[in-house]
Amino acid sequence: MSHSKPTPLVPAGPVRPGRGAAVALRPVVAADVTGGFWHGRREVNARVGIPQGPRLLESAGNLHNLRLAAHTARGAFRGDYPFMDSDVYKWLEAAAWRLGASGGAADVELAAQVDRITALVADAQQPDGYLNTWFQVTKDGRRYEDLRWGHELYCAGHLIQAAVAHHRATGGKELLEVAVRFADHLDSVFGRDKQIDGFDGHPEVETALVELYRETGERRYLDLAGYFVERHGHGLLGGEAYCQDRLPLRDQENVEGHAVRQLYLLAGAADLATETGDRGLLAACERLWAAMVATKTHITGGLGAHHDEEDFGDPFELPNERAYCETCAAVASVHFGWRMALLTGDARYSDLIERTLFNGFLAGVSLDGERWLYVNPLQVRDGHADTGGDQSARRTRWFRCACCPPNVMRLLASLEHYIASSDSDGLQIHQYATGRYVGEVAGEPVIVSAHTDYPWSGVVRLSVEDGPADRPWTLSLRIPQWCAGHRISVAGQDAAATVSESGWLRVERRWAPGDEVTLELDMAPRLVAADPRVDSVRGCVALERGPLVYCLEGFDNPGGGLDDIVIDAARPLAEESRPELLGGVITVTAAGYRRTVPNDGWWPYRAPADLTRTPAAQHTGPGDGALVLTAVPYYTWANRQDGSMRVWIPTR
Amino acid sequence: MSHSKPTPLVPAGPVRPGRGAAVALRPVVAADVTGGFWHGRREVNARVGIPQGPRLLESAGNLHNLRLAAHTARGAFRGDYPFMDSDVYKWLEAAAWRLGASGGAADVELAAQVDRITALVADAQQPDGYLNTWFQVTKDGRRYEDLRWGHELYCAGHLIQAAVAHHRATGGKELLEVAVRFADHLDSVFGRDKQIDGFDGHPEVETALVELYRETGERRYLDLAGYFVERHGHGLLGGEAYCQDRLPLRDQENVEGHAVRQLYLLAGAADLATETGDRGLLAACERLWAAMVATKTHITGGLGAHHDEEDFGDPFELPNERAYCETCAAVASVHFGWRMALLTGDARYSDLIERTLFNGFLAGVSLDGERWLYVNPLQVRDGHADTGGDQSARRTRWFRCACCPPNVMRLLASLEHYIASSDSDGLQIHQYATGRYVGEVAGEPVIVSAHTDYPWSGVVRLSVEDGPADRPWTLSLRIPQWCAGHRISVAGQDAAATVSESGWLRVERRWAPGDEVTLELDMAPRLVAADPRVDSVRGCVALERGPLVYCLEGFDNPGGGLDDIVIDAARPLAEESRPELLGGVITVTAAGYRRTVPNDGWWPYRAPADLTRTPAAQHTGPGDGALVLTAVPYYTWANRQDGSMRVWIPTR
Repeated sequence: MSHSKPTPLVPAGPVRPGRGAAVALRPVVAADVTGGFWHGRREVNARVGIPQGPRLLESAGNLHNLRLAAHTARGAFRGDYPFMDSDVYKWLEAAAWRLGASGGAADVELAAQVDRITALVADAQQPDGYLNTWFQVTKDGRRYEDLRWGHELYCAGHLIQAAVAHHRATGGKELLEVAVRFADHLDSVFGRDKQIDGFDGHPEVETALVELYRETGERRYLDLAGYFVERHGHGLLGGEAYCQDRLPLRDQENVEGHAVRQLYLLAGAADLATETGDRGLLAACERLWAAMVATKTHITGGLGAHHDEEDFGDPFELPNERAYCETCAAVASVHFGWRMALLTGDARYSDLIERTLFNGFLAGVSLDGERWLYVNPLQVRDGHADTGGDQSARRTRWFRCACCPPNVMRLLASLEHYIASSDSDGLQIHQYATGRYVGEVAGEPVIVSAHTDYPWSGVVRLSVEDGPADRPWTLSLRIPQWCAGHRISVAGQDAAATVSESGWLRVERRWAPGDEVTLELDMAPRLVAADPRVDSVRGCVALERGPLVYCLEGFDNPGGGLDDIVIDAARPLAEESRPELLGGVITVTAAGYRRTVPNDGWWPYRAPADLTRTPAAQHTGPGDGALVLTAVPYYTWANRQDGSMRVWIPTR
Repeated sequence: MSHSKPTPLVPAGPVRPGRGAAVALRPVVAADVTGGFWHGRREVNARVGIPQGPRLLESAGNLHNLRLAAHTARGAFRGDYPFMDSDVYKWLEAAAWRLGASGGAADVELAAQVDRITALVADAQQPDGYLNTWFQVTKDGRRYEDLRWGHELYCAGHLIQAAVAHHRATGGKELLEVAVRFADHLDSVFGRDKQIDGFDGHPEVETALVELYRETGERRYLDLAGYFVERHGHGLLGGEAYCQDRLPLRDQENVEGHAVRQLYLLAGAADLATETGDRGLLAACERLWAAMVATKTHITGGLGAHHDEEDFGDPFELPNERAYCETCAAVASVHFGWRMALLTGDARYSDLIERTLFNGFLAGVSLDGERWLYVNPLQVRDGHADTGGDQSARRTRWFRCACCPPNVMRLLASLEHYIASSDSDGLQIHQYATGRYVGEVAGEPVIVSAHTDYPWSGVVRLSVEDGPADRPWTLSLRIPQWCAGHRISVAGQDAAATVSESGWLRVERRWAPGDEVTLELDMAPRLVAADPRVDSVRGCVALERGPLVYCLEGFDNPGGGLDDIVIDAARPLAEESRPELLGGVITVTAAGYRRTVPNDGWWPYRAPADLTRTPAAQHTGPGDGALVLTAVPYYTWANRQDGSMRVWIPTR
């Protein structure tokens, strides 16, 4: 099996719009993150995260199940879910992107593991292309009898994505052949006039099929994806929002139901709109993204308000301690958002991607790459009674339902592909990360490299390495939504540049190799409040600095827990560089105090005056009881001890 | 079968402490609610609620399942739960109390139904006393293999309570014989040195067994109850808080796990402490009640913070829209509280009972007695997406898990027994309801009648009808926690009377038949705020009047929903008597306005100034946009239309 990397004539990442696609922007043809913040996180992913996969998949039974299906092992099916296979596929996808990024040769051991596990997958596949170990082993192969919960097509989707990644990143065809066989099987079974008119209760295969179409050129896969997207919402699975079956996307006014299902479906819909130019579907995607962001998104980018059913709540129902914010939903949000960014050219999609990556997503994996959060709450109370299990507020080695860890691995391993794009006018930098990005402007390569200590520093130095010399083109830089001020200099001189409504700062000029651009973003720590309809955080503020949301942890604020802490929002914030802390962070400090509650009654609801008419409760100044509150980036929480945490801090 | 009612020489209600019990107070020996608010609610229960039971139990399959177990019918088990039988038993208990209260003869049709269904139950019982249709029909009679979820002893507990009620209220022995056979069977199976060392994951049998001991004098039942209570918390069922198995009650610092399970267990523990004088168990019950009330109780008296697992949350984690507050938990809280009130003599237990009855409990049944709420949220947002099912915020005819409706029926049908008590010094009035209460002071009857339009009026007129004439005794009246002022007159003259720390106003004198006491409680509507650690309601107030918590419904406050409404807490409240509304209520009105949120950004988290720096958001006065907010009693919500509702109203 060869891992020689083909010359990247076309974008090599997870999303590759077709030649005729209705996109505003196209992913760059090559990208490499070479240093800085994300490089560090990706190195942990590459050195610790991904390599532990085979061992964990073995111990959790996933690989054993493949052998059972292949009749090369005996025993009982292991694990509790019909989607155990998808963990394997997501890991294969992560490994494939890693092999692509490292050039292949550097990861001989990893490549061998990929080959070994690919062979297990191929062996488990049935002659007609079907593959799901749960149904093969425990259900006598009775297929598609439980589309609502069976996850057979969901697993197929992850297999297809892994196969596309492997082919795209390494040129390897073994997994792609397995995926094509499964896709052909699905195409032979599912359709209005075929054996089964239905779809999977957990979307995922839709976006995967579009990418398989892009990879193979086989139009049937695109059509099948279109069929699946359109059949949602007509009650075929019983009409539940949970399964994305209450309404067609075209009729939905807001996101609903199971958050990951909704977002994977939207990613597929955006892919379809990309390839077909379907303006109705595009409008639905834009409308649902906007409603989601305005009414159902936590400040961390986290999505999903309910533990029960893992679903979205009502608009502005955004709890803190019971925020669900599944790590997979953060991954899915990035998938959906990136497709929308390319499709529309609107920078606000990448604003949310940035916020999600640095906060709601990155919190899902520990700094050491070995422990995970499935659920990402915004508050853990003093004395929190943790029930353990997958939904624990404590980092866990692996989950019974282990969907999140390999999802984190695959996004980190392919992250360089979400950073830059190009169009006929030039190159766009969506995210700030040290690296090298190769776009294409009217058939000519444009190469820009970036150097930055972002998100600690707001200074980003960009160098034009190559590009058309005979005519002007535009370098576009995203000015983040959170940024109160910015400055740009080109070749050492302050430059005036327009900022588009969606946030693109555009510099058009005749660039020469070696031209340097310096962007400075105002990184002063700041207070943020919420739309007053977010009842859960009324009278509170959050701390942010750059793209990072901060939180208080009990660990840094000892002496009585966090439940009684109040921030003095009128006093200035400060920051401190702490290279020794949590892998190197900048902390934010604020003035505050500890509230004391009158302890003179057994019932906690009383006349307002009774609750405030004590000196301690009226305390607002820096006198007795004044505290310095120390906040750390949210993505670093729960890496030192299990304890209390809060993002939103009361102001009185 | 005879329904002649025996002369009540001993308390005739659900809780009858034994002769030597370590109680401060004893239930009155007879009680009758003859008019006023609760009489109205009980009449609906008697005329509509209870009579619909047999039809609903037939259509839901519960009675069919009994026939299957008796081999008098064929077919498949109906319903999804192993505790389907308990719905039948709770209904039988409700019907029994009703027959007792009505004197039996008035309800010939109901008595016939009780006899018919009792016969079904008796027929279904196995020769050795075991009875659970789920296990008999669907599990080949494999008993006690799933104590965590099987609910076999839970069902036994409800059977026993129904049997005791029927015997106590009507003298009928048929059901009691079934219950005794089951209890004897349990006693032969469960114990440290017996066949099974374990307990039921859902407590309930504990309190039932104590009452069976009280009814029969059979000490083994008390011992078995003690065994069950003590075996909780040692990991026999896996150690989950959900099953009350994480810690023994004696070691718990706060209530935890599934709310109804915790509360039924505590009721059993309080019963045990009552009969055994176990001071350690009493201390645990007192500690857990106090912690629950101070940190885990909603303003409605509702208990249980999580939909997921139906359990208590962390201290002060009291969500509004996702408040669980299961109706059964309100019933269980009244059960536990009443036992503690008798055991300790402390009026604050009856304070919580009052709050629970008028709010969190009574909201569980519609005004017409035909529709139910399983879950009792404190907020329903504008545009709430209701998923239907048992946990719906819309009143439902019956539930798949129909535990709540017959629980409401049985508490309403026995409510007169929670109103008054007596001790060697006199008689205590815990709740204010028009009726007649017969206590016993040192062997002599004390009879007090009450007349009141409570909770609409705060005036309660009490008449002494009989009592010892030769020596003084004390009439004790509970001054509610919520009450800011009261006045009492005896025989037309203002009387000075002490109020104990827990809230008893005690009037000691030599009473003569015909003596009249008038208590006037300040019923002015009032604003209430929460302990600042209740994050979910920061910056909000609730409206209360007397024992009633009020809420805004969209129905009464049209023109834009409730999500943007703000109350002007500085302006006075008003009230209005509305006899035509919701069966006759007093509404409370407040000044407020409708907040407008700057609609100039796509992201809802911004600098605090950005969110308030508009004229509309700064609006605080009675000018443009001023509204009169109309609030109705919480127990009446969702009786006119499904729509938005909120108890806690932002003040800015």
